[in-house]
Amino acid sequence: MELISENRAFGGRHLRYEHEASTTQCKMTFAVYLPPFASADKPVPVLYWLSGLTCTDQNFMQKAGAMKLASELGMAIVAPDTSPRGDNIPDDDNGAYDFGLGAGFYVDATQAPWNTHYQMYSYVTEELPQLVEANLPVTKERAISGHSMGGHGALVIGLRNPNRYVSVSAFSPISNPSDCPWGQKALGNYLGSDESEWEKYDTAKLLAGATHSIPLLVEQGSKDEFLAEQLKPQSLVHAAQKTNTQLTLNMHEGYDHSYFFIASFIDEHLAFHAGHLGLI
Amino acid sequence: MELISENRAFGGRHLRYEHEASTTQCKMTFAVYLPPFASADKPVPVLYWLSGLTCTDQNFMQKAGAMKLASELGMAIVAPDTSPRGDNIPDDDNGAYDFGLGAGFYVDATQAPWNTHYQMYSYVTEELPQLVEANLPVTKERAISGHSMGGHGALVIGLRNPNRYVSVSAFSPISNPSDCPWGQKALGNYLGSDESEWEKYDTAKLLAGATHSIPLLVEQGSKDEFLAEQLKPQSLVHAAQKTNTQLTLNMHEGYDHSYFFIASFIDEHLAFHAGHLGLI
Repeated sequence: MELISENRAFGGRHLRYEHEASTTQCKMTFAVYLPPFASADKPVPVLYWLSGLTCTDQNFMQKAGAMKLASELGMAIVAPDTSPRGDNIPDDDNGAYDFGLGAGFYVDATQAPWNTHYQMYSYVTEELPQLVEANLPVTKERAISGHSMGGHGALVIGLRNPNRYVSVSAFSPISNPSDCPWGQKALGNYLGSDESEWEKYDTAKLLAGATHSIPLLVEQGSKDEFLAEQLKPQSLVHAAQKTNTQLTLNMHEGYDHSYFFIASFIDEHLAFHAGHLGLI
Repeated sequence: MELISENRAFGGRHLRYEHEASTTQCKMTFAVYLPPFASADKPVPVLYWLSGLTCTDQNFMQKAGAMKLASELGMAIVAPDTSPRGDNIPDDDNGAYDFGLGAGFYVDATQAPWNTHYQMYSYVTEELPQLVEANLPVTKERAISGHSMGGHGALVIGLRNPNRYVSVSAFSPISNPSDCPWGQKALGNYLGSDESEWEKYDTAKLLAGATHSIPLLVEQGSKDEFLAEQLKPQSLVHAAQKTNTQLTLNMHEGYDHSYFFIASFIDEHLAFHAGHLGLI
């Protein structure tokens, strides 16, 4: 992997890397925040952050205000891009923001032409952590969080890999993608029309069938413009009630879908993950 | 003034307004952060933030991570745009980033064609505060800060108006614009070739002749790519030594010119201003 930029921040380092990814068969960019004193002798655990539609590795690092507490806690943050990228990567026919580039939905596509490059589930769960753990001063302890499409990705990944991630959280996640326009478009195109194939990427369905427990924390704003049509967090509550899963869903009066909402509550999520990562 | 967007953030509100400005003779956009509980009955003091080249009202609000502490302190923040805007506003002939649109340099231009709209000094010191104080739940107590070109603007405005601002601070300011390429281009075009006209917009020169004291705090990164050629903070130290001005210049090893640097130290600046605004 190749370092493409570095900024000192809160005593630590914000790093951006490029690498040729075998899962997505293209060059991928990701960002890392390394807290002060992270070293091969003193590696730190990692919070993976998955961003939402249209985002890259940069939105969270620039806008979430997470580095201050991550620096104090001694937690690394890794933020991948939201899809494969490049001139040869197929995109939505109409260039829509909700499918294709910037909208990988954290699935392994099975349908042509998407299946060649759109393998974001494998990239995020396998290739990227292996690369990070082999090359940066981090432990193999992982937590995961994300926003909107990335909240969906984080919840799906945490629920399907409870032994690989100690905790999972989400802001404004697409909770039941089988039952909303964004999810139906993405899952239908990437996975095909057989809806049984969608279930392993649907948090509400995974949660209803969960046999392993993983700590779950979800934040949602009441004035989120996508709440009723796309996000449907009540589907998580209904699903969790069917199992022993401990889900905390915090509703916040007046907050919207923006990074101002994430910034307002990111410290609570960092502290939640830090507790499960043994940092506090 | 017309509200164009609103986000809840840290219990307060991030607001963006448009208005027809008489100083710049065009529509201007500015952003405000109002902390929780700010009301006509309980108005709060204001920190003005002036951004650097290419920025708008949005960079600071999205990237500085200032809202959390501003919320706790009960301090409003107002961030104007960095120049007049619009299709009819003259711009650099080559569309360069360092002059014209996004580069008003916080001066009142005297030279055609710039003098019709490029009146950012009067806009920031007179028109905008009057508008804000007449329409929002704020007091007339003001502090001012900024970054790069905006650090220059904040220092100039504070030094020239020590009775209107209780304290002034800057990140990576253009400290001696008469003696650097960015400043010479901007001041030469906006004010003409008579360099004696530049002095009232040159912090190092204003500071050397300062008769009124105002608390000054300056932050500078040692790896700032513009440090030696454009910023020259040592000119501030030399000038302050000639007077009784109390200048604190903090150099930070390894930090660059980015918002990651600002975010790393913005809380110290908010606390500095809060002390002078009587909030702590």
